[in-house]
Amino acid sequence: MKKLIQDKTHFLQDMLDGLKMTNPNIDVIADTVVVRQHKKTSGVALVSGGGSGHEPAHAGYVGEGMLDAAVCGEVFTSPTPDKVLEAIKAVDNGDGVLLIVKNYAGDVMNFEMAKDMAAMEDIQVEMVVVGDDIAIDDVEKRRGVAGTVFVHKYAGYLSERGKKLTELKTEVEALIEQIRTIGMALTPPAVPTTGKYGFDIEDHEMEIGIGIHGERGLERVPVEPVEQIVQRLIEQLKAEVTSDELIVMVNGMGGTPLSELDIVTKYVALQLEQEGKTVKGWFVGDYMTSLDMQGFSLTFVPYDEHVLSAFRAPTTSRFF
Amino acid sequence: MKKLIQDKTHFLQDMLDGLKMTNPNIDVIADTVVVRQHKKTSGVALVSGGGSGHEPAHAGYVGEGMLDAAVCGEVFTSPTPDKVLEAIKAVDNGDGVLLIVKNYAGDVMNFEMAKDMAAMEDIQVEMVVVGDDIAIDDVEKRRGVAGTVFVHKYAGYLSERGKKLTELKTEVEALIEQIRTIGMALTPPAVPTTGKYGFDIEDHEMEIGIGIHGERGLERVPVEPVEQIVQRLIEQLKAEVTSDELIVMVNGMGGTPLSELDIVTKYVALQLEQEGKTVKGWFVGDYMTSLDMQGFSLTFVPYDEHVLSAFRAPTTSRFF
Repeated sequence: MKKLIQDKTHFLQDMLDGLKMTNPNIDVIADTVVVRQHKKTSGVALVSGGGSGHEPAHAGYVGEGMLDAAVCGEVFTSPTPDKVLEAIKAVDNGDGVLLIVKNYAGDVMNFEMAKDMAAMEDIQVEMVVVGDDIAIDDVEKRRGVAGTVFVHKYAGYLSERGKKLTELKTEVEALIEQIRTIGMALTPPAVPTTGKYGFDIEDHEMEIGIGIHGERGLERVPVEPVEQIVQRLIEQLKAEVTSDELIVMVNGMGGTPLSELDIVTKYVALQLEQEGKTVKGWFVGDYMTSLDMQGFSLTFVPYDEHVLSAFRAPTTSRFF
Repeated sequence: MKKLIQDKTHFLQDMLDGLKMTNPNIDVIADTVVVRQHKKTSGVALVSGGGSGHEPAHAGYVGEGMLDAAVCGEVFTSPTPDKVLEAIKAVDNGDGVLLIVKNYAGDVMNFEMAKDMAAMEDIQVEMVVVGDDIAIDDVEKRRGVAGTVFVHKYAGYLSERGKKLTELKTEVEALIEQIRTIGMALTPPAVPTTGKYGFDIEDHEMEIGIGIHGERGLERVPVEPVEQIVQRLIEQLKAEVTSDELIVMVNGMGGTPLSELDIVTKYVALQLEQEGKTVKGWFVGDYMTSLDMQGFSLTFVPYDEHVLSAFRAPTTSRFF
């Protein structure tokens, strides 16, 4: 496995150092917590995070109009509660903190624990859990994937508009209920810290319904032209998102060239048009990756004018 | 070779369709020419282009503050003169057109021919050629690579400020003289239209001094930690760019995850610091790619306050 790294034992540190050196708008505290250079003086502060390897998520979304802090774990590994607590304490300005967590056992447990620790220090903290990945049947166990980035953006918008913590949490949860994602991959992620591939796959095969940590998919089938791949994914998504007007994200998995993402997008658009659905807002790019995996995910959100305005509102993050 | 495509014979068409469907600010004319939705009514119009496979270059840079049109050839293939002429005619508003061309024989010949054809229609056209790739010794033969994107941005800025064609060309050429780039790769690009890889390479090797069309490098050596790779590239760059204050681009080749680009950036920053050089502006991301190639290039420009302001000026392109 060939990687552009210095030493697998300080992958995370090196990555954050590089990010910090070139981004005057962020700071790194407690080694692995990325915060805004200028702390917000009022309004609900937003903290997310999780294992690394999903760049630009989550550190790339720290900025005005999105997150106040991102707690970065090692590659594909949850950050510890003490780091989450450091983030909470660094960003709280008295208006409370919302934790935005992807639905993985380790993340949920560690963010929950930090929330309890913060409560003991009289910091008002709420938590929302994103589980948008419909590759998992059991709704309770659905993983948080690319849709989480829409949640960051929406929460950031509401916070900028002065929403109070309880109300903001309620509105964010209402959006989370609506978001659905499914992904596919041609290749597994190559994990630099372990020197292992997420899964083995043959040269003529692809995985449908993969996770973003090298989890295998629901099924492995021969590689098909994009039109058929897109049909498979839309078939599953439309069973859950029935609205005729949609907001759609075509998310690259990290190793997919932009040319191929654009081709995917064309066939998504054609397929949806055939089914009588209108796409009111497109988001195409690398939002939530899995290292260098080649593949993409599709995220559908029922169109709502207010939600789309929030997604389109300005942010200083250059990745949204 | 696994690719997210529908049919290799309409790769370009599918890619441009996808781009158009999701970008209300652009239009596609003459099948392969991307232009702004709203034509500029005054000021020098800027046209670039070349073979496809370098996305977001060049179509992604069509927008306010950057290009007026991008002429897209097939993958790694020059566009024909008639398409370039279509672009020139579509964007000219009477203030003249500047063609920004990467130094490849086919591109230079075809853009030159289009320039002559436009002259016969009384359109004032000038042309600049970018050759920033120091992997080639012979200065006349140096290829145009990532530095070309800085040229787009600079020319776009000057045009917005109302510079006349002759003066704009002179200033752009003065910048071109200053830009130097060198790249490396861990893997070759996988070319969807031919089903072939740019070059063969072993699992433990890397190429130093590659081009962006699958051209092999100057030398092939065993993969090294990033610090040594960066030292190799900087060694060559600093022989040509002697300024103590720099503007630096760390450009991903398409398949490189952002985490690794950030790690590269850290070691570039450390190495330059050791050599007593100050980086006044960083640009880190995928600017000029080679399909899904894993690797990066480094571009150095001597710092100049005016040039950095131009690079940082607003643009509606989401890729700069």
